[in-house]
Amino acid sequence: MSHVFTDVPGGVTAPKGFRASGVHCGIRKNTEKKDLALIVADCECAAAAVYTTNLVQAAPIAVTRRHLLNGRARAILANSGNANACAADGEENALRVCAAAAKELNIPAEDIIVNSTGVIGQRLPIERIEAAMPELAAALDAGHGGADAAARAIMTTDTVKKEIAVTFELGGVNVTLGAIAKGSGMVRPNMATVLVFFTTDCAVSPGLLNDALSDAVKVSLNRVSVDGDTSTNDMAAILASGMAGNKLIGAKNGDYEIFRAALTHTATRLAKELARDGEGATKLVVCRVSGADDEQTAERLSMSVTSSSLVKAAMFGADANWGREMCAMGYAGARFDPSRVSISFSSGNGEVAVCQNGCGLDFDEDKAKLVLSGKEILIDISIGRGTASAETYGCDLTYDYVRINGEYRS
Amino acid sequence: MSHVFTDVPGGVTAPKGFRASGVHCGIRKNTEKKDLALIVADCECAAAAVYTTNLVQAAPIAVTRRHLLNGRARAILANSGNANACAADGEENALRVCAAAAKELNIPAEDIIVNSTGVIGQRLPIERIEAAMPELAAALDAGHGGADAAARAIMTTDTVKKEIAVTFELGGVNVTLGAIAKGSGMVRPNMATVLVFFTTDCAVSPGLLNDALSDAVKVSLNRVSVDGDTSTNDMAAILASGMAGNKLIGAKNGDYEIFRAALTHTATRLAKELARDGEGATKLVVCRVSGADDEQTAERLSMSVTSSSLVKAAMFGADANWGREMCAMGYAGARFDPSRVSISFSSGNGEVAVCQNGCGLDFDEDKAKLVLSGKEILIDISIGRGTASAETYGCDLTYDYVRINGEYRS
Repeated sequence: MSHVFTDVPGGVTAPKGFRASGVHCGIRKNTEKKDLALIVADCECAAAAVYTTNLVQAAPIAVTRRHLLNGRARAILANSGNANACAADGEENALRVCAAAAKELNIPAEDIIVNSTGVIGQRLPIERIEAAMPELAAALDAGHGGADAAARAIMTTDTVKKEIAVTFELGGVNVTLGAIAKGSGMVRPNMATVLVFFTTDCAVSPGLLNDALSDAVKVSLNRVSVDGDTSTNDMAAILASGMAGNKLIGAKNGDYEIFRAALTHTATRLAKELARDGEGATKLVVCRVSGADDEQTAERLSMSVTSSSLVKAAMFGADANWGREMCAMGYAGARFDPSRVSISFSSGNGEVAVCQNGCGLDFDEDKAKLVLSGKEILIDISIGRGTASAETYGCDLTYDYVRINGEYRS
Repeated sequence: MSHVFTDVPGGVTAPKGFRASGVHCGIRKNTEKKDLALIVADCECAAAAVYTTNLVQAAPIAVTRRHLLNGRARAILANSGNANACAADGEENALRVCAAAAKELNIPAEDIIVNSTGVIGQRLPIERIEAAMPELAAALDAGHGGADAAARAIMTTDTVKKEIAVTFELGGVNVTLGAIAKGSGMVRPNMATVLVFFTTDCAVSPGLLNDALSDAVKVSLNRVSVDGDTSTNDMAAILASGMAGNKLIGAKNGDYEIFRAALTHTATRLAKELARDGEGATKLVVCRVSGADDEQTAERLSMSVTSSSLVKAAMFGADANWGREMCAMGYAGARFDPSRVSISFSSGNGEVAVCQNGCGLDFDEDKAKLVLSGKEILIDISIGRGTASAETYGCDLTYDYVRINGEYRS
């Protein structure tokens, strides 16, 4: 099934029924950097979220889980600069954030999805958040300005704002899906990732919204690794206002499949953006493993390659040292026959085959260097068995990754 | 049980009955760099080895496995500069290495332990190795010169030669144990590690030698991570000449326990040396997790901390960002209660407690910076449950790691 998803401007306010805002409330020292984001729907929404599998979970995750038990929500509120994880009064402060927003927005506190991102282990400066709430609410905007501010307010070490919106047709009706994301470091999602907030005007039941989100995240955001560290605050959440006017999706029918495909398309593009803007990264590295007996094997082998420090450093140096891919697959914990492996590299600068049937090919080193100097590298590996395949998304390991993480709190 | 293990000079030739040598045969371009090492016993030895668990295994590993089926060997031969993994004629060339050495030494080819280390995927320049064999055999030396040359010949990106020898008493007899090792990159041993070659004059049966080696490696070399990449060529091997004159260890008695303790002591010191000299490393990072219900839990949590890129970069930057330790434990896949975790950092410059019962402590940032600027950092974590503990060994993540691995083949 192939559908047309057309890019539109507007980010999370592109779908009907959403306003957004972002302000600087004083968590971050830099007063130019927004650190508090809000997305609000005009009506109650079907809502769903997936969360980090880290055993250490930030306080707001627990609060959001409870708030989403009924599959309904109205707003998303997130701060950057402080993770509210392993911090004094964590849950109390997450509840205070919700209470302050509820009062200002005149909605139930239980209808708020809350999260935080930033340094672990420091008390959330709740007073500053409470004090900024009137300003944040007053700044709500159904135009692109609000969505832009919200997207910027959740950024941490991200260098690029991550925002997307697409429209597609559902039973003759135009439906829109928007999203913002932040990533950069501590990125090795597992069941959820980083912060990603979706909005849509699609009419869809909460249960199916949850299924579609889980499925989409599994093959997109869960296939990103910047540094192998699964964060304590990962969350992907979605609000569906139903204001597009489509027939409510209440079963896993054709409309559901299209909606799920739109969500997967959007999440996959964000996954690539997150990898491309990984801390210190100079390039996006996509690893496709094909010829597997099943998708899980392909995913595991591919993830091991994109996660390998040695592969990542070689990508930075544009060094076609393919033995590192072979080595990373070898310790991935999945079965394959090394003597049936073929590997090639490609980018906007061309393609070069480096290994066939497990042995090195004579290749032009200058050409390989040129290929690997591209900004988007595909490591294409076939393990020569079945027809299953999987792609995962990573980046190179650079001096800047070390610099950023050697002085993160400074 | 506590024993006295006294350091002695001599490396792998310190035990009675061993000669060693190392030469440059032309695998490495730099003619100053020795690339071929040989250790030979004066008599047939009890012998054992443990190997990498990487599914992709270098050709010499298969050959050595067959040669050690009878628990006997006479010599160890290893080259650096080429891994003979995923390479044309791999096994044939590993056999040719053994044949050439056997002819020169007048011993059976099946009595030779063979391995390689270096770039994966390139054909072993077997002709150069064969041509250098007479020179290598002629250079054999029972004095420290030979051991030193062998230790240097197996180095790859190591910056420091790794060599150790200790003596201890066994039933009134002095027994000696020597070892050389190489590590540096692609280091995340699993069941074996890097290249480590032990020699001893202890009289011990092959089966018990194998058990003692496996046990020692499990709590030492298998607890090292430089970059999380388990190599295709990892091997730890031991030759026991029996020439010390002790009563043959043929059962798991008191003598066996002392011998095993000596091997564990030696392997643990080498593990620390390997971590300290990890590619680009400026410091040794030891993580001790205590208060666990069982050792496996402690080991898993500890290994997750020493393997985390974010922890490693923070150690480089001397940043007491302890949330990263907490986060790394959270995704380790072992159970613990975050609210019972305490964390402190120490080094030669002092100690600083940063987290108690899962929450941050107010600590002096200047003092923490001073502590973490030490050359040997202990991350001391208690999870507040049982009495089991484990230490693992790592290093910091630095600009030089990126530099070395961005241009490894150049």
